[in-house]
Amino acid sequence: MSPNSFEQWRRDVVAQVEQGLDQCLPSIDHVPTVLHEAMHYATKSPGKRIRSLIVCACADLFGSNIERAIHSAISIELIHTYSLVHDDLPCMDNDDLRRGQPTVHVAFDEATAMLVGDALQPLAFNVLATQPINISHEVRVRQIHLLSEAAGTQGMVGGQAIDLAQIGLKMSQSELELMHSKKTGALFLASAEIGALCGLEYEESYREPLRSCARHIGLGFQVVDDILDASSPTEVLGKSAGKDLRDNKPTYVTSFGLARAKEMAAELEERTEESLMCLPRSGGYLSDIAKLVFNRVS
Amino acid sequence: MSPNSFEQWRRDVVAQVEQGLDQCLPSIDHVPTVLHEAMHYATKSPGKRIRSLIVCACADLFGSNIERAIHSAISIELIHTYSLVHDDLPCMDNDDLRRGQPTVHVAFDEATAMLVGDALQPLAFNVLATQPINISHEVRVRQIHLLSEAAGTQGMVGGQAIDLAQIGLKMSQSELELMHSKKTGALFLASAEIGALCGLEYEESYREPLRSCARHIGLGFQVVDDILDASSPTEVLGKSAGKDLRDNKPTYVTSFGLARAKEMAAELEERTEESLMCLPRSGGYLSDIAKLVFNRVS
Repeated sequence: MSPNSFEQWRRDVVAQVEQGLDQCLPSIDHVPTVLHEAMHYATKSPGKRIRSLIVCACADLFGSNIERAIHSAISIELIHTYSLVHDDLPCMDNDDLRRGQPTVHVAFDEATAMLVGDALQPLAFNVLATQPINISHEVRVRQIHLLSEAAGTQGMVGGQAIDLAQIGLKMSQSELELMHSKKTGALFLASAEIGALCGLEYEESYREPLRSCARHIGLGFQVVDDILDASSPTEVLGKSAGKDLRDNKPTYVTSFGLARAKEMAAELEERTEESLMCLPRSGGYLSDIAKLVFNRVS
Repeated sequence: MSPNSFEQWRRDVVAQVEQGLDQCLPSIDHVPTVLHEAMHYATKSPGKRIRSLIVCACADLFGSNIERAIHSAISIELIHTYSLVHDDLPCMDNDDLRRGQPTVHVAFDEATAMLVGDALQPLAFNVLATQPINISHEVRVRQIHLLSEAAGTQGMVGGQAIDLAQIGLKMSQSELELMHSKKTGALFLASAEIGALCGLEYEESYREPLRSCARHIGLGFQVVDDILDASSPTEVLGKSAGKDLRDNKPTYVTSFGLARAKEMAAELEERTEESLMCLPRSGGYLSDIAKLVFNRVS
């Protein structure tokens, strides 16, 4: 796979996800207009759409094109966006800046930010239930099941609860991994499986290598996040740099130092590569995404 | 149907829903323990379970017993409970008392209350996706679709947004009805249809009378709520009496006076009875539930 063809594919996915998100959100001409406007604001801010890329790459591995997987990707982006909006609220991480823009509760108000998250979440399930393509009811139910687990207390919400409870504490590597496997990893895992299910060639035997791959990419994403948070300026990150440190939150860098965190990232990248070898076409675009995640600078 | 047999059935439904809720919530022995404890606290508080009764009554109308409909009822209670927890938060209605007990953010804290709601919502979809009974994937997808619409901006979240925007304003009857049709009515409607779908005898021709019935019961529930809020003491209500008035929120009573609100309730009860006549066994237990809703004192 040449870097050019991945770059073209990546741009295609991002463009289709952003267009699809816009179409599935309620129109800002309809009541309640401010809430709808805030939902568009939250989803439109320029993210990397890594999770969508994982959905579509895993779909591609098993014979599905982007069109067939696009609603799966949109549903993942909706859940991811809701979680960012709620995590940024004053009673949670209290952050003013996200993807280079004022967070939703700053641009609008707290009640609106709360409702944006509360509305994006059911919309994600709605999008999976109503995909306007030939995906069986059985697959839809499995996708909804996977998404609901990833969003619940064994997934993202559980990770956020552990995160809030750990402020000021030092965590062991396994405790940090447990927290991030829920907070970030669960949605990466769900993205991979929900995407793979779009492909008719997906088989149970690929489940473990796929999950292992997604798990390592997810953890790697977080370790790299912590490294960047500690070493990059706010302008590059698009969010408040060094904030975890100021908030006294345990990160890979605060817990193990910058050098060891970089080693950990390299180890995770190696393990990702091992898992990729067990997938068709040695992971296809998923292998390019892994490179993107481990080598990103913002 | 004798009043005794309804009373027995009602107790059966409530007992099974409460047991089922307890079983589907994550164990308080598992991490994150405080969050799980707060989820149990929120769902356990003694509600009337009107929505569950509607689910099971509509299921019963079309040949489904309580067991077959119980997971549908549980999913509705989870969504209803999440909405109460979030609505009570300081940035929303800021209420300290719910069902006679301190609200979740008072008993725990704001971040926990937020996460309780965020976790109950995907759990509701999870419960529908994984019902351990012989309900087809197609029906599950339809139920999930209905629930996701009821929970979104055309339903509950939209109603809450309109409500927050209307503080201090006087609303016309049709504006109030629009708000409540979203805020309360949407989940009543979804309860009726999701329940009916559990029954193998449910047919498209029953859809309109069923929806009409649920719509009128839902609006009636709200009008009676406003009447009780204005005329009953806190001890009887189990929530802060007269709070809507103090918060300057438009209600049926503040907008039209107590006498006219009582007339409206009577009109809605009449219209409910008309719709009930178009259903099998003239509405079965749904007719008893309507009596309960229109004649309740708390």
